This record gives sequence, C-alpha cells and structure tokens, in this order.
Amino acid sequence: MAQNNTITFYDLTMAHGATTSPFVWATKYALKHKGFDLDVVPGGFTGIMERTGGKTERLPAIVDDGKWVLDSWGIVEYLDETYPDRPMLIPHESVAALTKALDAWWWPTAVGPWMRCFCADYRDLCFEHDKEYVTASREKMLGMKLEEMQAGRENRLPQISAAIEPLRKALSEHKWLGGSEPNYADYRILGPILFLASVGKQPALAEDDPLRDWIERCRDLFGGLGRHPGLHELYGLHVPEGGPEPYMRESWRGGIYKRNTGPESTRAETEFITKRAE
Amino acid sequence: MAQNNTITFYDLTMAHGATTSPFVWATKYALKHKGFDLDVVPGGFTGIMERTGGKTERLPAIVDDGKWVLDSWGIVEYLDETYPDRPMLIPHESVAALTKALDAWWWPTAVGPWMRCFCADYRDLCFEHDKEYVTASREKMLGMKLEEMQAGRENRLPQISAAIEPLRKALSEHKWLGGSEPNYADYRILGPILFLASVGKQPALAEDDPLRDWIERCRDLFGGLGRHPGLHELYGLHVPEGGPEPYMRESWRGGIYKRNTGPESTRAETEFITKRAE
Repeated sequence: MAQNNTITFYDLTMAHGATTSPFVWATKYALKHKGFDLDVVPGGFTGIMERTGGKTERLPAIVDDGKWVLDSWGIVEYLDETYPDRPMLIPHESVAALTKALDAWWWPTAVGPWMRCFCADYRDLCFEHDKEYVTASREKMLGMKLEEMQAGRENRLPQISAAIEPLRKALSEHKWLGGSEPNYADYRILGPILFLASVGKQPALAEDDPLRDWIERCRDLFGGLGRHPGLHELYGLHVPEGGPEPYMRESWRGGIYKRNTGPESTRAETEFITKRAE
Repeated sequence: MAQNNTITFYDLTMAHGATTSPFVWATKYALKHKGFDLDVVPGGFTGIMERTGGKTERLPAIVDDGKWVLDSWGIVEYLDETYPDRPMLIPHESVAALTKALDAWWWPTAVGPWMRCFCADYRDLCFEHDKEYVTASREKMLGMKLEEMQAGRENRLPQISAAIEPLRKALSEHKWLGGSEPNYADYRILGPILFLASVGKQPALAEDDPLRDWIERCRDLFGGLGRHPGLHELYGLHVPEGGPEPYMRESWRGGIYKRNTGPESTRAETEFITKRAE
C-alpha cells in the first residue's frame, strides 16, 4: 500500500515540461482521482528502459510501494481493485466496456488524424536528445516525412472537429461522461485532447466549440492538473472558405437527437416528409 | 403500477409481423429486462395517431396502468425511476452518457448507411397500406428514388461492416456492453441490427463476424425475443473482389489494442519503428 499516500509515476513530456502521451495523461488523472500524491520521474521518449531499470519500453508505468504496474488499463484495474474504498474510476463494468468502444472510435476518428496534423510540431517540441528517435520512429510508422504528413492540415482539422460530434451529444445532456461526477471515461477521452495541447502549435477546436466547457472543467480538476504553462491554445480553429462547420449547431439537431413529447414535437418533420413534391 | 405485471406496447412492424424500428426494438427489450409482460398493439407506419388516440405520431409508446409514456429514452428513464427494485436498465448515469455517445456514433456510421442500403427492401416488406406513405416519405427524406439509393449496396455493405470495429473491440473484452449482464446499452445498439434483420433481404455481416456471438446471445434473451420467423439472415455478407475486409482480424491488432506487459510485449513494434530505412 502506498507509503505516505504517494505513488511513483513515470512521466513522458516534451521539452516544455508538460505531459505528452494521451495514455500518460489519462493515468495521471486516474491517480489523482484515487487521491494519491505523485512522486514524478520526469523524462522524454528515449531512455525509458534505463529509467525503469528494464521494466518497460512504454509508459505509463507506476510503482506502488515497490510493486510495478504497467499499461494504462492495467493501472486503472489495479487502482480500483487495490483501493476500492477510494472513488472508483470504473464504477460499473458497463462503463469499462462502453469506454473501450468509445476509445476505439476516438483513436481512428480524431487522435490518429490529430497526430498526423501535428507530427512535425511534436518533433520540434520534444527534448533535443529525443529528436532523432522521434523523427525516425514516426517516419517509419507514418511511411513519409513528418513535414509532408503535416502539410495541408488546415483543411483536415475542421473535418476532424466535425467528426467528434458523438462526444458533444453525450456532453450536451450530462455534465461528465461519468454522469454527475467525472470518472475514467472522462480522463480516457480527455488524454488525447491534452496531448493536442501539448504538441499542437495551431488550435484544433473552434473558439465556441460546445466541448470547451467540459474540457476546461476537466483541466481545472485536481488543482488545475490540465493547466501546465507549456500547453498551447486549443481554441481558435481557422476554417478555410468552403470548409465544413466544425460542429453541429444545436438548432440543426433533429432525428435521433430530438425527444418525442407528443404530436407537437414531431409535426414539422411530419409536414416535411409528407409534403407532396411540387 | 402495471396491472397483472402487464404494460401496453405499441409495436411497429413489417407485413411479416416482426418489429422494424430500432427504437421500438430497444424498447421491447427494455420492458422485458424490467420483467413485464406486454399487451402488444400491432400496426405499421400509417395510422399511429388513430391507434394511439392522438397521443403520438411516432413510436415507441407505452401505456402503464393508464399512463402514457413516449420516446425511447423517455420510456427507459420512466421504467428505472418507477421500478427501481427491478433490474436497472441504466445501472449508473455514466452508462447513459456513454451509451448516448456511442449511439450518436452508431447512427451516422452504420444505421443511416444500412437504411440507405435497404430502403427499397423496406418498402417492399411493409404492409400494403403503408407502401405509399413509406415510399413518399422516405424519398422526401433521402432526396431520391428508393431504388437509386439502394443501388450499389454490395460495395457499401463491406465498408459499413469494417467501420463498426469499436463494438468488436468492446465485446472482445466484455461479455455484454453491460459487463457481465446485458443492460440498455446492449439493447440500444442491438435495435438497429434487428431492424436490419427485419428489412434486409441480403446479409450485411460476414459469416464469421466476431459480433455474431453477442448478437445471437442478445436474440436468445427473454425466450428468444429476437428470433421472430419473419426476420432475415444477417450473416453471409458477400465481399466483392478488392473490397475491404469486413472486420479486423485479431492477429492484426496492435497499438492501442495491445496491452503492455513488459518489454517482451512491445519488442516487435520497437524493432519495426527503430529499424533503419534500407
């Protein structure tokens, strides 16, 4: 059990000192949710095996009173199993199943595309000693030069923003993905947004994005955990002439978004679909 | 409170007698989950206002001991609030928030595209007296002839199947979206799959789709509620030459799908990304 309420946390940051990895961000929030203090071991992308004494090539990793725990989901399961009397990260098994489904949508829809929009910024912002590794490994993963991959992002960013509507839907009806209190579902989805703030030199979300309220409330949690001074501005996305709306206006919402409260609530739609073609 | 444990349920079916609407399917499962018997009022798309005495233009609708309750989410909230001692449909508010997010992904990704692939089948299978209304209203919504919209579906169906990977991810690790027991998250996502079985004359899912096990277990619930003889075969999707794989093979899963259990588990990826270009 954690000595002095403290758990050792292996961080992964840019040269500006803010955490980078979405999974490391989510894990940092998870540890704070359980009420722990962190003994942070700082560092970048290279040297993880050396820093962890050969325990892992990837982060997050934690050490709780001598016990190593790896993997973002592995850590969450460990924390809830070991400390069930502290606030639960996953209050019901259904929350785990649904968060995994949502996460498996979130990565190909937004996180991967954002990574491709900011891959050269990311390299520019990492520690000097990480630059060669980051450049070579990412160019290998992506199959092209970082500058080529990043080029044209001004056209892609509004499309990514438009594609994340399912989050806006859920958060228009609930304060948190966790309901009335945040839980690991919030932190898991937030992680990539804080990654974006860590590596993105250009805003990826509209000034008036309806997600802004939830994101800013998440950043305020645990004494402003998501407010490191190294982070960049998230809001102020520029949409080029003819580009898509970066989010769906409330007033356009119909169909499955609209509740049936009786014939008055469906009349306009009925009139539209039954009107004879002229 | 429900007399004789029975709630009146306004159904919406095709001529073959099986329920059509995804929302009506989800609601039927929800009522059975709460342990109620159903007094079913059958019917098709036209005449809903007449059947319900002017209470609603849309279904689902239920009457519980004289009290009308409308709207699929409205009914679920009513059932859990009114009958909290029966199995909960939404066991935690986070399940509602996450199900809404997943549903807001599911509709534009799969349900809408499936509707466009089967819109002429749907018209052919509805009651004779519904055909004129279904044709006119759907052509108005879609902005074209049903046959034109449906054409070319053999190329679209494998893409839709490939796009629903997030569900496969969640259900590869959990028995139900509800965890160890099904809840409304399962029924909400299942509804459109049973809609597909109701209206689709061609299979939309691969013979060996990993979702098949979950779908068939859902169909078995409540005495085989999802096994009406009017339903069509879901499995046996034909993928044209050069078409996409209809689902991701387990063996291809890496990245966020793979757990870090130490350096052995990440070595292959590390070797790949650090190998020098030849």
